[in-house]
Amino acid sequence: MAEAELSKLGHDVRGRASAETLSAFVESVLRAAGTETGHARSVASALTEASLRGVDSHGVRLAVHYAKVVRTGRINPNPQLKVDRTGPGTAILDADNGFGHHASFAAIDEGVALAAETGIAAVSVINSSHFGAAGCYSLRAAASGYVGFAFANSDSFVLAHDSVEPFHGTNPISFAAPVAGERPFLLDMATSTVPWNRVQDMMAKGLTLPNDVAVDSSGAITRQPAEAAALLPIGGLHFGFKGAALASMLEILSAVMTGSPHCTELLGMVGPDWSTPRRLGHFFIVIDPARFVPRPLYDAAMAAYLADIRAARARPGTSVMAPGDREWKVERERSANGIPVAEALAIAFDNLAAELAVPPLAYL
Amino acid sequence: MAEAELSKLGHDVRGRASAETLSAFVESVLRAAGTETGHARSVASALTEASLRGVDSHGVRLAVHYAKVVRTGRINPNPQLKVDRTGPGTAILDADNGFGHHASFAAIDEGVALAAETGIAAVSVINSSHFGAAGCYSLRAAASGYVGFAFANSDSFVLAHDSVEPFHGTNPISFAAPVAGERPFLLDMATSTVPWNRVQDMMAKGLTLPNDVAVDSSGAITRQPAEAAALLPIGGLHFGFKGAALASMLEILSAVMTGSPHCTELLGMVGPDWSTPRRLGHFFIVIDPARFVPRPLYDAAMAAYLADIRAARARPGTSVMAPGDREWKVERERSANGIPVAEALAIAFDNLAAELAVPPLAYL
Repeated sequence: MAEAELSKLGHDVRGRASAETLSAFVESVLRAAGTETGHARSVASALTEASLRGVDSHGVRLAVHYAKVVRTGRINPNPQLKVDRTGPGTAILDADNGFGHHASFAAIDEGVALAAETGIAAVSVINSSHFGAAGCYSLRAAASGYVGFAFANSDSFVLAHDSVEPFHGTNPISFAAPVAGERPFLLDMATSTVPWNRVQDMMAKGLTLPNDVAVDSSGAITRQPAEAAALLPIGGLHFGFKGAALASMLEILSAVMTGSPHCTELLGMVGPDWSTPRRLGHFFIVIDPARFVPRPLYDAAMAAYLADIRAARARPGTSVMAPGDREWKVERERSANGIPVAEALAIAFDNLAAELAVPPLAYL
Repeated sequence: MAEAELSKLGHDVRGRASAETLSAFVESVLRAAGTETGHARSVASALTEASLRGVDSHGVRLAVHYAKVVRTGRINPNPQLKVDRTGPGTAILDADNGFGHHASFAAIDEGVALAAETGIAAVSVINSSHFGAAGCYSLRAAASGYVGFAFANSDSFVLAHDSVEPFHGTNPISFAAPVAGERPFLLDMATSTVPWNRVQDMMAKGLTLPNDVAVDSSGAITRQPAEAAALLPIGGLHFGFKGAALASMLEILSAVMTGSPHCTELLGMVGPDWSTPRRLGHFFIVIDPARFVPRPLYDAAMAAYLADIRAARARPGTSVMAPGDREWKVERERSANGIPVAEALAIAFDNLAAELAVPPLAYL
């Protein structure tokens, strides 16, 4: 379930830009910063699709960060990807310290190619970097008619259960599955209750945090964003052993299984070291559902399940949605009306355009 | 993270029995009820290992239920398992309406055999029944040196996010991975915050529920066990979209992908129909970690990660544990001292022994 940050949209929006325009702008910025065209295009595509779905935390705003890290030397702007097939259903993709997005799309494509033969495949990515929204990659599998899992870790922001200081990252898990005649089923979630940038956003707006989502530097729950020193895993103080266990699973899949650094070993995404590659690992699984149930039965069963969940009796003032429904609703709205760009981000885009001598973003 | 219900152990315990004695008793009961020996042994083994780990909700107490459903005709006592290999890395195992435990162990063994060739395998189980603790099967993969996932659904007890009535089951997910020189890493959790039998147990003890774990029949949060009509997914009222999304993923894997009934279509585990097979589906994934990282590096990375999590600065009065640590601690204690049997369960065992003319359970 993506953190669709719809609440932000009313605040200080410069204007809306079409997905095509935004994607072209991001691509031009990254190319001007030295990134090879195909890689720049993959990043732009991943960020734009996340923004379209309302996942603004992992949307086009990240272009500012990426334009920085490709220039500070952390990211190899022209990586040579290398695929090592280690079994009929397995491969390791070396991202050569380039952007994680291009490598991860390539990993899914490799997984689909393998799973077309074996029925299921797993592809790890090594020597990678931040890959944006995990959902981009599970969805890439679903777009090919396959079920996809995407697993990743990140640097420390979240308590381990019963710890009082950051340990795990907000480690995301994503799962997508094709739905006949509709956009795919999509689970795309961090294993913390809220993302770190939600805390920052609430601080900027002078808001109080929900209970049981963040702790201060002593490990006590705080509702003051300025005091927040770490996030709680899903389940909060008392039941966070569940969210923490999921975060651990993601460390094993994306770090231990790939020979990459785990949470506390990772260099921070936001420095202080901006030049050393972070050597992130990711892990993807791709499954052909037709090996388990004939496609017409799969389609009918999926439709029946989704119909049932959407028909569940709802809390007053709400409707019960299937995972992904919220994102696809935002996608429809933003495809029609453009993607809103916050004023702060618009200023950062203006500065980037000037620094890199590319045409500024055009608004609708 | 299993729901180790350690708090119960001080209450009304008849005595302790050794794991071997308990397993033999459960096997003898199920055989006397008509179950074929190998299947009875698999059930006994799964229940006893869950009890050893402290997962009493899915331990030997279930023998009473299983002895009932094999006699009421829901369970086929002498099923003929059939494996259909549908690809180099995929298979469907038809459980022929027998106990889910034997079929699920067989599915993991099939998955290990396939993954030995392909590097990764998925095996679905169809026409199955309740399989006990999901962790039994991921651990079976880990015992062979593989990483294992186990996925299942169950009948409705848990709200969908924003719904006010039960929709999903407590749908469990398990993940296990080998650890050199130690018991495996183990995630084994329901996607509700607490299990339903925790609510019943707290009612029996006159206790108040934690906040944000259950709702009454109007969908409002209640702390009175007697008023609880449904459980909340992990994340509770406000962030339960994460737990509910995980529950949805488990429906897709174990029901949609296997052509089996989903949550609201399932016959209830506790009736009213006790004779019709429930046609449960399960889904398992088995991965060979050596296809991704040389085993010595995997072992070193796992050891480093686990050492880091266990060394994390702990909340006063606690220690930070890795997933599984609590279960293996209980296993050590119970292996040495026996498994405690509550008085209520001991009476049920006495009755079963008398009805089925098997020797009663011997206590230490």
